[in-house]
Amino acid sequence: MKDQHIVISKATIDRLPLYFRTLRNVQEEGLEIISSEELGRRIGITPEQIRKDLSLFGEFGKKGVGYYVRDLIRNIGEILGLHRNWNIAIVGVGHLGWALANYQNFSSLGFNLAATFDVDPGIVGARVNDVPIYHLDEMERVIPEKHIVIGVITVPAEFAQQVANRLIKAGIRGIWNFAPIKLNVPDDVKLVNEDLSIGLSSISYYLSRQLPGDKY
Amino acid sequence: MKDQHIVISKATIDRLPLYFRTLRNVQEEGLEIISSEELGRRIGITPEQIRKDLSLFGEFGKKGVGYYVRDLIRNIGEILGLHRNWNIAIVGVGHLGWALANYQNFSSLGFNLAATFDVDPGIVGARVNDVPIYHLDEMERVIPEKHIVIGVITVPAEFAQQVANRLIKAGIRGIWNFAPIKLNVPDDVKLVNEDLSIGLSSISYYLSRQLPGDKY
Repeated sequence: MKDQHIVISKATIDRLPLYFRTLRNVQEEGLEIISSEELGRRIGITPEQIRKDLSLFGEFGKKGVGYYVRDLIRNIGEILGLHRNWNIAIVGVGHLGWALANYQNFSSLGFNLAATFDVDPGIVGARVNDVPIYHLDEMERVIPEKHIVIGVITVPAEFAQQVANRLIKAGIRGIWNFAPIKLNVPDDVKLVNEDLSIGLSSISYYLSRQLPGDKY
Repeated sequence: MKDQHIVISKATIDRLPLYFRTLRNVQEEGLEIISSEELGRRIGITPEQIRKDLSLFGEFGKKGVGYYVRDLIRNIGEILGLHRNWNIAIVGVGHLGWALANYQNFSSLGFNLAATFDVDPGIVGARVNDVPIYHLDEMERVIPEKHIVIGVITVPAEFAQQVANRLIKAGIRGIWNFAPIKLNVPDDVKLVNEDLSIGLSSISYYLSRQLPGDKY
């Protein structure tokens, strides 16, 4: 890696998991080298963008040949910290929590679902995707015991802040929040909010400019 | 609106739904005017960023006073096309589809879930969030009949392309894809891919730089 301390834009960081996943598919197909054109075609972004993004991290490509797939996977994985195999926990095993617990891409990226939590006596004690569903009150014991560092919040908005507080107190260092509410967390805890309205609103924005309507 | 044809960055477009939702909460509290400082505090971004974003669309603020909440809601809503009340359909009523069908924010943003589709005889004919679950084979009839323009794909990856093809043939103009696969769609169909691995990878990226580990 060229330098761990260079500043990388959020947009680039957000594209790295796409590169990582696509390259792993390429590797499974038995390819050892891939051009930025072919990689771009598979992901749906321009080869120029790919070359620009990857040049930030060093010389992974060979001019006129392409990128060495195995090296690039290892390097992007290290950049993203995916070789660390982070243990994660999901709090709130409703439909969304259940869907996330079964999302195959997480484990393929090196995230290990170690525990889930809920308060519903109908599911506490059961398993989701072979992972135990603990009662919320066991959080303070289970999280340090299982070395869980990332918490995923999929509880209703009104409970999200108190769940965040308890996760942080139990030792969590990163929170991925699906509740549509602004959480307050200390500066040393990394918070990522997943806002599911953005995708639809972005489609709406583009369609408004394309389709005839009452106001346009 | 200043000009509908100015180029707005994707980052700004992605922040507009946050502004819109937060301003509606502000309005419900009875406030008529809000400063960029207070709006920023509620959303968790800087007042400078808010002023920069909103200045793109015209003069919604009054110096030293703040933004007129009602006007700003109407204007952002029009920019995003949210006053159009788009009809949407969800294809694939597994846990993720079910969770999305019950996501309160969509209806509050003006998206109307008009139909859902699945192939499982155990759920076809039932309802989710009071919306009918149709068989996939009814798509070609139901979509034009209910004036549905946006399709949400929550089927397994191996079925996603054929579902997209059928949605488009039935008249869909925008696709919100949750399947972890690159879909091919015609240029006049707006495709937004929701990649749930990005949030976790971004936490991993930051934690790698913060926490001691085997390689850092």
